[in-house]
Amino acid sequence: MSQIGFGSRIRKSPFFDSTIEAGAAAFTIYNRMYMPVSYGNPDAEYELLTTAVALWDVAAERQVEIVGPDAKALVQYLSARNLESIKPGVARYAPLCDHNGVLINDPIVVCVNPDRYWLSIADSDVLLWVRAVAGERGDNVDVFEPDVSPLAIQGPLAEQLMADLVGPEMVAGLGFFKHCFAEIQGIPFVLCRSGWSKQGGFELFLTDGTRGNELWSIVMDAGEKYGIGPGTPNQQERIESGLLSYGSDHLRDATPLEVGLGAFVSLDNDIDFIGKAALLADRSGQSGRRPRRLVNVDINGPAISNTHPWPLTRGGVPVGELRNMVWSPRLQRSIGLAFVDAVAAEPGTVLSAQAEWQTLEAVVSGQPFGDPRA
Amino acid sequence: MSQIGFGSRIRKSPFFDSTIEAGAAAFTIYNRMYMPVSYGNPDAEYELLTTAVALWDVAAERQVEIVGPDAKALVQYLSARNLESIKPGVARYAPLCDHNGVLINDPIVVCVNPDRYWLSIADSDVLLWVRAVAGERGDNVDVFEPDVSPLAIQGPLAEQLMADLVGPEMVAGLGFFKHCFAEIQGIPFVLCRSGWSKQGGFELFLTDGTRGNELWSIVMDAGEKYGIGPGTPNQQERIESGLLSYGSDHLRDATPLEVGLGAFVSLDNDIDFIGKAALLADRSGQSGRRPRRLVNVDINGPAISNTHPWPLTRGGVPVGELRNMVWSPRLQRSIGLAFVDAVAAEPGTVLSAQAEWQTLEAVVSGQPFGDPRA
Repeated sequence: MSQIGFGSRIRKSPFFDSTIEAGAAAFTIYNRMYMPVSYGNPDAEYELLTTAVALWDVAAERQVEIVGPDAKALVQYLSARNLESIKPGVARYAPLCDHNGVLINDPIVVCVNPDRYWLSIADSDVLLWVRAVAGERGDNVDVFEPDVSPLAIQGPLAEQLMADLVGPEMVAGLGFFKHCFAEIQGIPFVLCRSGWSKQGGFELFLTDGTRGNELWSIVMDAGEKYGIGPGTPNQQERIESGLLSYGSDHLRDATPLEVGLGAFVSLDNDIDFIGKAALLADRSGQSGRRPRRLVNVDINGPAISNTHPWPLTRGGVPVGELRNMVWSPRLQRSIGLAFVDAVAAEPGTVLSAQAEWQTLEAVVSGQPFGDPRA
Repeated sequence: MSQIGFGSRIRKSPFFDSTIEAGAAAFTIYNRMYMPVSYGNPDAEYELLTTAVALWDVAAERQVEIVGPDAKALVQYLSARNLESIKPGVARYAPLCDHNGVLINDPIVVCVNPDRYWLSIADSDVLLWVRAVAGERGDNVDVFEPDVSPLAIQGPLAEQLMADLVGPEMVAGLGFFKHCFAEIQGIPFVLCRSGWSKQGGFELFLTDGTRGNELWSIVMDAGEKYGIGPGTPNQQERIESGLLSYGSDHLRDATPLEVGLGAFVSLDNDIDFIGKAALLADRSGQSGRRPRRLVNVDINGPAISNTHPWPLTRGGVPVGELRNMVWSPRLQRSIGLAFVDAVAAEPGTVLSAQAEWQTLEAVVSGQPFGDPRA
């Protein structure tokens, strides 16, 4: 491990001081914002998330706001998924592709008002990309990063905690990927039933960045009786649960079909979106691109994890990379995600993974993300 | 200080292992690549850069390659600077603006061939932006990130070291911001007289990422007699020398005119580029934007530096932020860069900087970057 340098190029989250005080031990940089990735005890953090409730600073999940008369048409043109049915109060997981059909982000699209949308993004500069598209098209929209910072409350006890905070009616009425305006002690946020785990929970999209530490304290105090603690997006749980980590699980030239997001790509109707022609050419085999797949793999033996991709071979021939590998407490074995040539993607295929210290046997077990989220 | 998390989302530079072995103590993340920012002894690193020669891993300065029949026309449309005279062997510092005239990067444009260009970028996803523009325009180009990783050799003795490595003729014939193809022991690179310091030196744009550690060792061995050591882009020297740090010295909604890059923006001819109309509206006062300026400031007293922006006021009224502050060994005082309302930009203006622990008096001393680089 090395130190991280703090400086003015990278932003601090509205919850930054609270996370330091709570013992944040390691950070990454995500959308040019510091984001905690560890509080120093991975086993305890997994336990907290899967049995109680954890509070995550995910302000680095920045928003790209698109507002104006052409906003809805533009958002549909940007999104590979059919968004006809989106409306205020509804959010959709909607991959974005560039003109070559390459996945450039996998945001949640939040419809705030009929002419106002947030793309709640993973780690890439979608703001620049949307501005370029809107600018060249001459769309009548404003595109900017608003003062909106998500705080995630995740875990089986999140439901009760949230009911204590905003009242049981609001929580009971909120379906998965639905959202509404809310406030606690005058602190305004959009409350959405969402989050990057499958343990249940909410994201509070704080809309006043000056009040982050206040909100953190209020949630922590109210959560004490449920055993709440600080946590971070959890690599073990999300791989067990089959949630994609954009840019981490695959190479940056991957298509949404290659990473298993076909269920969110509307190729078979008359919706027009950026990258559709390229994806259709891929599907019909006319693009000349060699198809790859994101697959689950198992490695037998003791607990294993990686900090960078390991090369994979089959019979001595390179076939891809083992991108992420963790010990699964639920399955009691090491599981991971590999990005491999399609010919090596069949379940049961035996691959060799070149770790730093030895060669390991990895067996393809299936494909993740078959399950549409919402 | 906190730890940095290592994982598959962020890439390692081809020189990564060498930097770890050389004692890299802290990293940042820049263009989704780990980049060393300290070897643990700032005074010694400044001394090395300004009196001898230092070797920097700046592979995170990624390239966006634009190649094809429409490449030259597209590069001109992307760049706020007039590039009519660019040709193979020549590089130009050329700011990029979005359709609102906002500075989105300040790359060096390297003309590799008449139909092949590299944008050698600061920290933002120019690749996505260029692909969006090219895609919407229907330009006949390929846009991608090539296997090109800069290694910088900077300092007053860089000239002699480079002559030892590639021969004195090649070095003597290479003017500022000029480049040529070169190799050392079969390791291919583009050699450019450039770099993010004003101590003199070169950037070696390695074009085979598998050979980074080899190249590092060769340069280190050859540099031993000049007292070479590892270093990083140096905050003290670059502020003394007036080199912009994109995204760090200013807010991300700044225009190139606001940050002092007017000399590189071609508003008074018939060159068309993205953002020109917005910048002209700004200049004529029709945009309604409140103008700001990047200015140098002095703070009297002991050595001071900051790790995040400090709010600035004048007579109790907020006027901007003190973005970066360092102790200048050359000037023997604390100097910095502030991004302030234009009304507070006059030399001699006295501002109050709110540091974490006290209020400091900062005096505007002038504007940086008046000096066109190349």
